Amino acid sequence: MIIRVLGSAAGGGFPQWNCNGANSRDVRAGRAGLKPRTQSALAVSANERDWVLLNASPDIRQQIDATPALHPRPGDGIRNSPIAAVILTNGDVDHVAGLLSLREGQPFTLYASSRVLQALAANSIFNVLAPEKVGRQSMTPGTPFPIAGPAGETGLSAEAFVVPGKVALYLEDPEAGENFGTEEGDTIGLKISDTAAGTSFFYIPGCATLDDALVERLRAAALLFFDGTLYTNDEMIAQGLSAKTGQRMGHMNMSGADGSLAAFEALGVQRRIYIHINNSNPVLRETSPERGVVEGAGWEVAYDGMEVRL
Amino acid sequence: MIIRVLGSAAGGGFPQWNCNGANSRDVRAGRAGLKPRTQSALAVSANERDWVLLNASPDIRQQIDATPALHPRPGDGIRNSPIAAVILTNGDVDHVAGLLSLREGQPFTLYASSRVLQALAANSIFNVLAPEKVGRQSMTPGTPFPIAGPAGETGLSAEAFVVPGKVALYLEDPEAGENFGTEEGDTIGLKISDTAAGTSFFYIPGCATLDDALVERLRAAALLFFDGTLYTNDEMIAQGLSAKTGQRMGHMNMSGADGSLAAFEALGVQRRIYIHINNSNPVLRETSPERGVVEGAGWEVAYDGMEVRL
Repeated sequence: MIIRVLGSAAGGGFPQWNCNGANSRDVRAGRAGLKPRTQSALAVSANERDWVLLNASPDIRQQIDATPALHPRPGDGIRNSPIAAVILTNGDVDHVAGLLSLREGQPFTLYASSRVLQALAANSIFNVLAPEKVGRQSMTPGTPFPIAGPAGETGLSAEAFVVPGKVALYLEDPEAGENFGTEEGDTIGLKISDTAAGTSFFYIPGCATLDDALVERLRAAALLFFDGTLYTNDEMIAQGLSAKTGQRMGHMNMSGADGSLAAFEALGVQRRIYIHINNSNPVLRETSPERGVVEGAGWEVAYDGMEVRL
Repeated sequence: MIIRVLGSAAGGGFPQWNCNGANSRDVRAGRAGLKPRTQSALAVSANERDWVLLNASPDIRQQIDATPALHPRPGDGIRNSPIAAVILTNGDVDHVAGLLSLREGQPFTLYASSRVLQALAANSIFNVLAPEKVGRQSMTPGTPFPIAGPAGETGLSAEAFVVPGKVALYLEDPEAGENFGTEEGDTIGLKISDTAAGTSFFYIPGCATLDDALVERLRAAALLFFDGTLYTNDEMIAQGLSAKTGQRMGHMNMSGADGSLAAFEALGVQRRIYIHINNSNPVLRETSPERGVVEGAGWEVAYDGMEVRL
């Protein structure tokens, strides 16, 4: 199984178009030790022929351009794509807007939770993906299924599982109290398996807290891509970027007693990679103390174009 | 007035993600004489400080990254953008999807026809542009107005005018006969003027035919960006790319008796630039006979990063 990081940044990307914070400013200026990053998505393949995208970021056209394995195959007709399927983990703009760039009559399978499929159905702009070309399949959390494209199975299977999180910003109901109308299935994690090889990994780009069910599920996993949005819960407030904490946005921080570094310390996950990294996060600076802390704890920080084989 | 071409390609861009046609294949391979192009949009400024975008392409994040004039200003706070306003010419995905990348709480003004504003309002995903930050202004065709951003007027004014075209694909009503429910205001052209200098130009990235009203409006214009989607009406069918003609998509072709080359021959437009060029169009090859015909007739072919001063 090959896993390719198409994009490693949180919503807005790095740099973010309207951000003058130190990280965005320095990466825009080309300063050493910071890499530009597009918005988070993975591409996975068991056979190096059929590829499955995990999330469809607004930067998807640029990401496909930068990834020869995702280009049309020479001998396969005038219109074709190795992209057999797309799986969504929530309805956030940074995970679904790229669907609009996958128009052009190309068949593939779209998998999402019923809640996210409802959100897409309620937005007619997604009808550019004609239903007869792009089948929309609802995933039932806890039920593994083979990932199939228009030409059949891909050799990969997926299991969705519910993750503590928050409904997408544009679907928030301000009248619905402190969880803004969030329901089960608004945020999911994915376990992706190579059916023949028996290997598997987890992809959880958004997670508000590590509850007992998640702890048991992830214990001793071979490979995990995990929510690396923020280093501290209030870093966007401290930097003057936003009035929102990580918890308000459905993201747990890396550092501190309630952070992911501590939560995973004793879980025995063999390879841990932070993804969906916000432009405010000090780990984006390769020589920062925070980057040292994260790497010292055995974590890696994903970058665009990173390739992992399992 | 400075006009910067952010993107010069039609929907899908060049190369298109799932296209193996000769043009897309060759540009993807880096062959000489073909330039990659993002999806069509212009940026305009009268004062080199406030910028107005004409259309918001799905590639907007990449386009802003590539355009230093659109980066946040150093002394203007931690979140800021020189983008004061966005004006839409229709509701097509290649003209509106980029709005989703202009989220992040940044104030600007959004101008569109009432028909296009209705389409945006019917798609809740565009609520990521909070109404208290991004005012949505309806344009009345034939009524010029000053283009204003959150900080006031930009020194530019605009006039929208109705253009023969087609409703956006995702809004087509298959029951509504051969025009798919298209109504007046679904496609508009823009006249943009520098208020102080008195100069102006036209931007018409989609146009199904040049009717008498348009002929009179455009006669002797100083500068025109015009629909360069196709060279011949049936070229996508001939290349095996699609079953649709240009007319079916709301685009007039360049060549032939009904083409734009002939239509503009005697109109005295001083500078004519094709934009919104589809990946099937032979003028994308800089040494093609068709490119020679177009340039021989006095037209230019827009490219990403092209700058025009007026």
